[in-house]
Amino acid sequence: MRLGVFDSGSGGLSVLKSIYEAKLFSDIIYYGDMARLPYGSKDKESIIQFCIEALEFFKSQKIDLLIIACNTASAHALSTLQKLASFPVIGVIESGILATQKKLPDLNSKLLVIATKATIASNEYQNRLQALGYRHISAIATPLFVPLVEENIFDGEIVQSCMHHYFKPLDFNPDGIILGCTHFPLLSQAISSYFNNQSLLIHSGEAILDYIKLHFPTLKSNHTELSFYASSDLQSLKNTARFWLNLP
Amino acid sequence: MRLGVFDSGSGGLSVLKSIYEAKLFSDIIYYGDMARLPYGSKDKESIIQFCIEALEFFKSQKIDLLIIACNTASAHALSTLQKLASFPVIGVIESGILATQKKLPDLNSKLLVIATKATIASNEYQNRLQALGYRHISAIATPLFVPLVEENIFDGEIVQSCMHHYFKPLDFNPDGIILGCTHFPLLSQAISSYFNNQSLLIHSGEAILDYIKLHFPTLKSNHTELSFYASSDLQSLKNTARFWLNLP
Repeated sequence: MRLGVFDSGSGGLSVLKSIYEAKLFSDIIYYGDMARLPYGSKDKESIIQFCIEALEFFKSQKIDLLIIACNTASAHALSTLQKLASFPVIGVIESGILATQKKLPDLNSKLLVIATKATIASNEYQNRLQALGYRHISAIATPLFVPLVEENIFDGEIVQSCMHHYFKPLDFNPDGIILGCTHFPLLSQAISSYFNNQSLLIHSGEAILDYIKLHFPTLKSNHTELSFYASSDLQSLKNTARFWLNLP
Repeated sequence: MRLGVFDSGSGGLSVLKSIYEAKLFSDIIYYGDMARLPYGSKDKESIIQFCIEALEFFKSQKIDLLIIACNTASAHALSTLQKLASFPVIGVIESGILATQKKLPDLNSKLLVIATKATIASNEYQNRLQALGYRHISAIATPLFVPLVEENIFDGEIVQSCMHHYFKPLDFNPDGIILGCTHFPLLSQAISSYFNNQSLLIHSGEAILDYIKLHFPTLKSNHTELSFYASSDLQSLKNTARFWLNLP
């Protein structure tokens, strides 16, 4: 089985890592749209067009399954890609929702979704959670968290003031916080501490492995061949991949 | 005379505004690479490639002069574009340097350049100032200033903590601060106040009008036809242009 992993940049490597280590696929082809990142502040039509172009690349790679590791791309383009592809296409929002169901099955749980502007504007998380019966859902776009992580700033004064800026309108402590962007798990400790370590943090990308195992239970491969492609700056993507995946 | 103005996004509209109001050109064609913004965190080779593609567009528009309104693009691609174009290509770094010479001719002036990572890494500002004889030049990449402006956050706690983060290593009050990114003038007040209003702020983009008047003194046009193009999300660019330029 050949797996494709698509992300707007290198953030999806965290998703790739857990799948790679689980030894499920003979080949994993990762494509990062490094030229056009970040997607989170761009408009819906552009995001869909970028994803369709990525899909054309993955078709040429003869993959059997495609994961959209980027929440923003999943939020806006998943259904379009599913219509255009002859193989299954899965996104991180579905897996994030599945993880929420497993970890916080009580429909009275107070949920907070944080993500990019585009993801929050799509209402994908909110609508799906509501459709499942959850009654207390808040959603906040926290766009500044992305450049903070890209600057390797994970705590301290700036992070505190950004959290204060975004979270001060909240008048409750969430039971669960869905980290709806591949960058946000790197801020887990700061976010958790802001809410007095009383909230369960759900990383939508991490949950995709469970999702694959649930829907494709027979997958197994002794060896996985990794390939990396990018619309620009492939070297930087490969360097990050080496670091994340402990590759030589 | 037909002028082309190129920017990675909509930030160059501030440059366009002053030129438009000066009534110099019969046509101004603005192109924003909205699909691939921001350039400031991308690698040199990618930036040069993006700019070459933009140049191809401007060649098809039969322009007589091209302004690179983006500091990052000017820093990395100007000399390449000048070699490839049959018309003059000018960038905002040259005009920023010219403005510094006029406003702070004393070569003992303490200068601070702030810009994106890519612009600072190019050393363009630093080398040119040094070549002119300036002896006290500091340069700091302030990448978080870009998303702050894009979020319309121009003052308050987050801006203060970001400035503290970037400026605390400085052990002097600059005589002049070169704002080496089209976004930064929107933070002028906060930056000026941080340094007790004792520093002269130089907006590299604003200075381009002086640069044009100096090198092309006979330009004049009663009417200017404006056209806008973008690699994606043209609507958002046009909306911003309407706002900036007070167009109907």
